[in-house]
Amino acid sequence: MASTASPRPRVLIIGSGFGGLFAAQALKRADVDVTVVARTSHHLFQPLLYQVATGILSPGEIAPPTREVLSRQRNAEVLLGEVIEIDLAAREVHTDTLGLRRRHRYDHLIVAAGTNQSWFGHDEFADYAPGMKSIDDALELRGRIFGAYELAELAAAEGRSAEELSRLMTFVVIGAGPTGVEMAGQLAELARRTLRRDFRHIDPENARVILLDAAPTVLGTFHESLRGKAERSLEQLGIQVRLGAMVVGVDAYGLDVEDTDGNRGRIEAFTKVWAAGVAASPLAKVLADQVGLQVDKQGRIPVERDLTLPGHPEVHVIGDMMALDNLPGVAQVAIQGGRHAAAEIRRALRGERTGQPFHYKDKGNMATISRFRAIAEVGRIKVTGFTAWVMWLVVHLLYIIGFKSQVTTLLRWAVSFIGRGRAERTITQQQVLARLALQETPDVHRWLATGPTEHPEDSRPPRRRE
Amino acid sequence: MASTASPRPRVLIIGSGFGGLFAAQALKRADVDVTVVARTSHHLFQPLLYQVATGILSPGEIAPPTREVLSRQRNAEVLLGEVIEIDLAAREVHTDTLGLRRRHRYDHLIVAAGTNQSWFGHDEFADYAPGMKSIDDALELRGRIFGAYELAELAAAEGRSAEELSRLMTFVVIGAGPTGVEMAGQLAELARRTLRRDFRHIDPENARVILLDAAPTVLGTFHESLRGKAERSLEQLGIQVRLGAMVVGVDAYGLDVEDTDGNRGRIEAFTKVWAAGVAASPLAKVLADQVGLQVDKQGRIPVERDLTLPGHPEVHVIGDMMALDNLPGVAQVAIQGGRHAAAEIRRALRGERTGQPFHYKDKGNMATISRFRAIAEVGRIKVTGFTAWVMWLVVHLLYIIGFKSQVTTLLRWAVSFIGRGRAERTITQQQVLARLALQETPDVHRWLATGPTEHPEDSRPPRRRE
Repeated sequence: MASTASPRPRVLIIGSGFGGLFAAQALKRADVDVTVVARTSHHLFQPLLYQVATGILSPGEIAPPTREVLSRQRNAEVLLGEVIEIDLAAREVHTDTLGLRRRHRYDHLIVAAGTNQSWFGHDEFADYAPGMKSIDDALELRGRIFGAYELAELAAAEGRSAEELSRLMTFVVIGAGPTGVEMAGQLAELARRTLRRDFRHIDPENARVILLDAAPTVLGTFHESLRGKAERSLEQLGIQVRLGAMVVGVDAYGLDVEDTDGNRGRIEAFTKVWAAGVAASPLAKVLADQVGLQVDKQGRIPVERDLTLPGHPEVHVIGDMMALDNLPGVAQVAIQGGRHAAAEIRRALRGERTGQPFHYKDKGNMATISRFRAIAEVGRIKVTGFTAWVMWLVVHLLYIIGFKSQVTTLLRWAVSFIGRGRAERTITQQQVLARLALQETPDVHRWLATGPTEHPEDSRPPRRRE
Repeated sequence: MASTASPRPRVLIIGSGFGGLFAAQALKRADVDVTVVARTSHHLFQPLLYQVATGILSPGEIAPPTREVLSRQRNAEVLLGEVIEIDLAAREVHTDTLGLRRRHRYDHLIVAAGTNQSWFGHDEFADYAPGMKSIDDALELRGRIFGAYELAELAAAEGRSAEELSRLMTFVVIGAGPTGVEMAGQLAELARRTLRRDFRHIDPENARVILLDAAPTVLGTFHESLRGKAERSLEQLGIQVRLGAMVVGVDAYGLDVEDTDGNRGRIEAFTKVWAAGVAASPLAKVLADQVGLQVDKQGRIPVERDLTLPGHPEVHVIGDMMALDNLPGVAQVAIQGGRHAAAEIRRALRGERTGQPFHYKDKGNMATISRFRAIAEVGRIKVTGFTAWVMWLVVHLLYIIGFKSQVTTLLRWAVSFIGRGRAERTITQQQVLARLALQETPDVHRWLATGPTEHPEDSRPPRRRE
């Protein structure tokens, strides 16, 4: 394990998302050493994160270890670490892993660090309305969602007031993009189908699911006709869609919203999910500062048409971090960007002309609303309902199988779409007791500990209706 | 949801393990209201916990929500809460849920709170050698096990010393009962099969797995001939079995052991798993104090032959918490005890004679060592190797299917036993970064931050051997 200087060029890739992983794979046959540095040890199939949060899939099904995905690619290594500095002049990246600092020299650099959740300058909202960007987020939300029903059952057994019960059984999703819509749809399904028979003191069907957005429409990136259909589908599922509603405050008990006329309102809700905004990794600014550029308002850095950093043909910035032609922050942009960067590097290695412009091929756009309902647009073709849902299913299955054979995922979907079961509802103590208790204790505690009756009579469980 | 006094007797069950759940199910047709109070919202199939820790199964596969298991049982309700007091005179149980105190009256009480991990009076060991009793434990260990390989890869890339690498790649399991043996076997399989191709700077096959026990033999509850075979199987897997070795100290770097002659030795190891001892729930002592009894050295309370608490025919204590005829702490004792208690309650309701003695029917004993290898004894019949492993597979599948149809589990097993993949290796930030970093930061930090070289040359990944 002694170090020897390598004669081969080193391609350093920051990030193990779609962009980083596809770039690494596209360099499989290139005469380079590839190092992927990422702050998690797994690749994350983000489009299905909401299914982990709502108990359909387990983390392992959407987050394979990056080193397992790349295990057969001989020229690639994977190292765990958070990038804390990119030194363009020295061609070095500095990482930190549990306090261990390290420098990595590179000949080519691909920066694909993606985005983080953004609470639009209100990071204090995060404790009460966790985001939807990581496995940890999804498990945290799983604990809160199923935990809210547990608390509601207890509160009902205690004979608490209707207001308190309603607060416990109100779920608010902030942000009506694809993630928010999918989350709201699943929350409705949980209430109406999955949990239907599981409680004795509450009726999960009384749960309220509210989908909020400051914009005047749901799924703003889709064609108008599809947006209308999506909104009606959501309402048919019993979801309250409130548009033009900006969140101005979030606390343990609910949130404050302001409409477009500046009128304020209050929604009492125990569980809040933040699916509203993202901001590019701070590494975009680290790069921008060194080349005298400004990041845009989503924190993205402008790149050349060939996806390189201006003045640095050895550095590509791809995916959600880059600003180019207003391309959306979707998996396909990252995947195609990763492949483009890899192709450019291969050309450079062969001494061919580089600097070819990136042409994004829009393969279409889709979002599921609930089982059997989705919307999709491919070019000018617009599809809704069951057909769109089957398209969604096929596309997502193909992706997952691309990384590893996941027959189990198909089976879990069969169980959850055809049946009403969910295999992955387990919540850990860490989530329910430690996190909910430690983070929200003062509030939850105070609120739950002061009630109408201190030692109510035990109530007989009401008979479940058939 | 108004409370009305119930004319039906209330059976309160503490615990949602094998004992509590089988007791509840055995009361399905009885004219009673059943309340199951437990501190987790899931039943836990403990015998497979080691598979969650080592990445084969997801939590949902061995921990179905208790209320889902009982959803079709109309006379049963499930409430989340930790029992903090049992008042035998008032026939009341006091619970605490996130600070919410509640009293539950009962006509019949079944106490099935099981055991907790015991570090034999050394609770300070727990931070460094987590137990194996809960989903949280298993996920914590999953994070530490896979995290140790990540750290080892980094350390090797840094050119750290052989001693430091060896410490990171040494896994010690303390306790050579079935849990410890299964855990050690899986750790060996991880190193030899699962992770074989995943690293570039370390060779996982160099990992050391050490199985320690203070006793002179592995699997003490099995017949001598089987024990010998098990020990040889473990050694064939490359596991170092060290018997007669008592752990006298555990820290971030390793552990101190003392042999039967009082000689001390040191084992350098980053990852330690505590599978050594259990102690009955403190509720055993709560009960014992009220009836003037003493708990035994495992904290268990002596019960009458009909499993009732002496002087309290309305209270049954079942499973791992009770001391009777030196019955072992296995699932079958809890299951049969739960059914016996339920049968006694049904007899009492019908006005029939109660107080029938509990007869434990020993259905046999089995332990897996690794895939395709197990030992089993049923009465005088002793089976080893592949046949025993198939028996193990069938018995465990039947149990799991008893709670819910888990076709996915069978598939995951196919993937992991026939192939070399593991579907559930995902570790959360919470586990690797938060827990490992926060709990062990001072040590890990200091150790990793001070190395032979502060900014070593990047080393070229060694070519992977085929």
